[in-house]
Amino acid sequence: MTDLESFAVELARTGGAAALPYFRGAYAIEDKGAAGAYDPVTKADRAAEAAMRRLIGERYPHHGVIGEEYGEDRPDAEHVWVLDPIDGTRAFVAGLPLWTCLVGLTVEGRPEVGAIGQPYLNEVFAGGPSGARLLWSGGETTLRSRPCERLTDAVLATTDPDIFTGAELGAFTQVRAAARLTRLGCDAYAYAMVAAGRIDIVVESGLKPWDWTALAPVVRAAGGGFVNWRGEAPDAGGQVLAVGDVALIEQALVTLRRSAI
Amino acid sequence: MTDLESFAVELARTGGAAALPYFRGAYAIEDKGAAGAYDPVTKADRAAEAAMRRLIGERYPHHGVIGEEYGEDRPDAEHVWVLDPIDGTRAFVAGLPLWTCLVGLTVEGRPEVGAIGQPYLNEVFAGGPSGARLLWSGGETTLRSRPCERLTDAVLATTDPDIFTGAELGAFTQVRAAARLTRLGCDAYAYAMVAAGRIDIVVESGLKPWDWTALAPVVRAAGGGFVNWRGEAPDAGGQVLAVGDVALIEQALVTLRRSAI
Repeated sequence: MTDLESFAVELARTGGAAALPYFRGAYAIEDKGAAGAYDPVTKADRAAEAAMRRLIGERYPHHGVIGEEYGEDRPDAEHVWVLDPIDGTRAFVAGLPLWTCLVGLTVEGRPEVGAIGQPYLNEVFAGGPSGARLLWSGGETTLRSRPCERLTDAVLATTDPDIFTGAELGAFTQVRAAARLTRLGCDAYAYAMVAAGRIDIVVESGLKPWDWTALAPVVRAAGGGFVNWRGEAPDAGGQVLAVGDVALIEQALVTLRRSAI
Repeated sequence: MTDLESFAVELARTGGAAALPYFRGAYAIEDKGAAGAYDPVTKADRAAEAAMRRLIGERYPHHGVIGEEYGEDRPDAEHVWVLDPIDGTRAFVAGLPLWTCLVGLTVEGRPEVGAIGQPYLNEVFAGGPSGARLLWSGGETTLRSRPCERLTDAVLATTDPDIFTGAELGAFTQVRAAARLTRLGCDAYAYAMVAAGRIDIVVESGLKPWDWTALAPVVRAAGGGFVNWRGEAPDAGGQVLAVGDVALIEQALVTLRRSAI
């Protein structure tokens, strides 16, 4: 791994470790009512992002940082870290260990390094110039997305069809009808599974830069493709298509392009 | 724990251990094409159920067994073990560690003991006459569902809205509109999270007896409710409503009862 890739993994571990104590609250009963129920997530989000920002400030003080909780710091720097301390807050709230701590690095605006960490599972999926790998309790495993030439053979994932607008939902429903099997409720973890060769295609919309900057380098370094619904580099529009086999891009875009922003 | 509760946990661990080696295939690339892609699940299913049946035959040879893979054996016995070696095959296929090994025990036809095991997480959620508990790497934790008196405060889960028929989907959509937050894609793990006080309500349909027999004792022993869409004991109809706070049953049934089979 390059120094920046190793540092991305260290950041994902640091953020994950800061958030983990708030997850499931050691299975204690929590009864603060509706308004208070989000508190553990907000606290975990802030603790994780603060820990990551501290580390960046120590190690690379001239780098920029964009985070969901604490905003922008030198966003025009050559190197900018893009942080989502807890992606999948619904999973976090519901006690499901599929939320992730996301760390992306853009170099001159392009996502070049990414790390997807899940501390309860002790997993970090990392990708960058040196390749893609999973760091887990079993050691280090190279990540390779899998061949899948036809959409009709593909395992498809999306977090929730409710994320789509009306026109988007129509397009997604057509992709779903063509795919072999669909799995919902994955958030960023679905993209890690594309890199790991378990899921073939992920279709989502409404994503913010901190939702996807970390994901693109992991999927691409594992051999997959990561584009928007026009087949270009993802942008502020937030419509994302990730595939393990780039042959799937055009097959999915036939439908998705009509609803591209 | 009673002897039968301990044995249910042992079965869930045995089945889970038999299935685990097939999960993610050690992250190897798998490229057998569409038809072969289900093989690992079928093999894991069979290995897990065979291991559990062997153990039951040794320990309780007079008990009955009903399993998804190998059918019925003395289904009219006083004690009958109801097995789903891998619940959540889509999660299994997609590499997501939320599939479970389900073990239920009916006594004179009534579900009295249940165990929900997830071997990758090293978790077994168990319930029966002596209470409900989570056995995990951190030891043993008592499970208590949480108070939630109003549907508008509730965290709702279902595996996929596509499991519902047209009339059922209308009813579910109304429940979803009322709930505070919805999480999809959980399978049996959602019921474990009801017992753990993290999810307040699960609404599903089309479940087979081996899908829910293990779940009812865990949810009930943790303080929750487990009924069909008429508010009665679940049956072959397969429409299930599980809640952490029994106050939610009537609020959900206002809508669901109209689509009850």
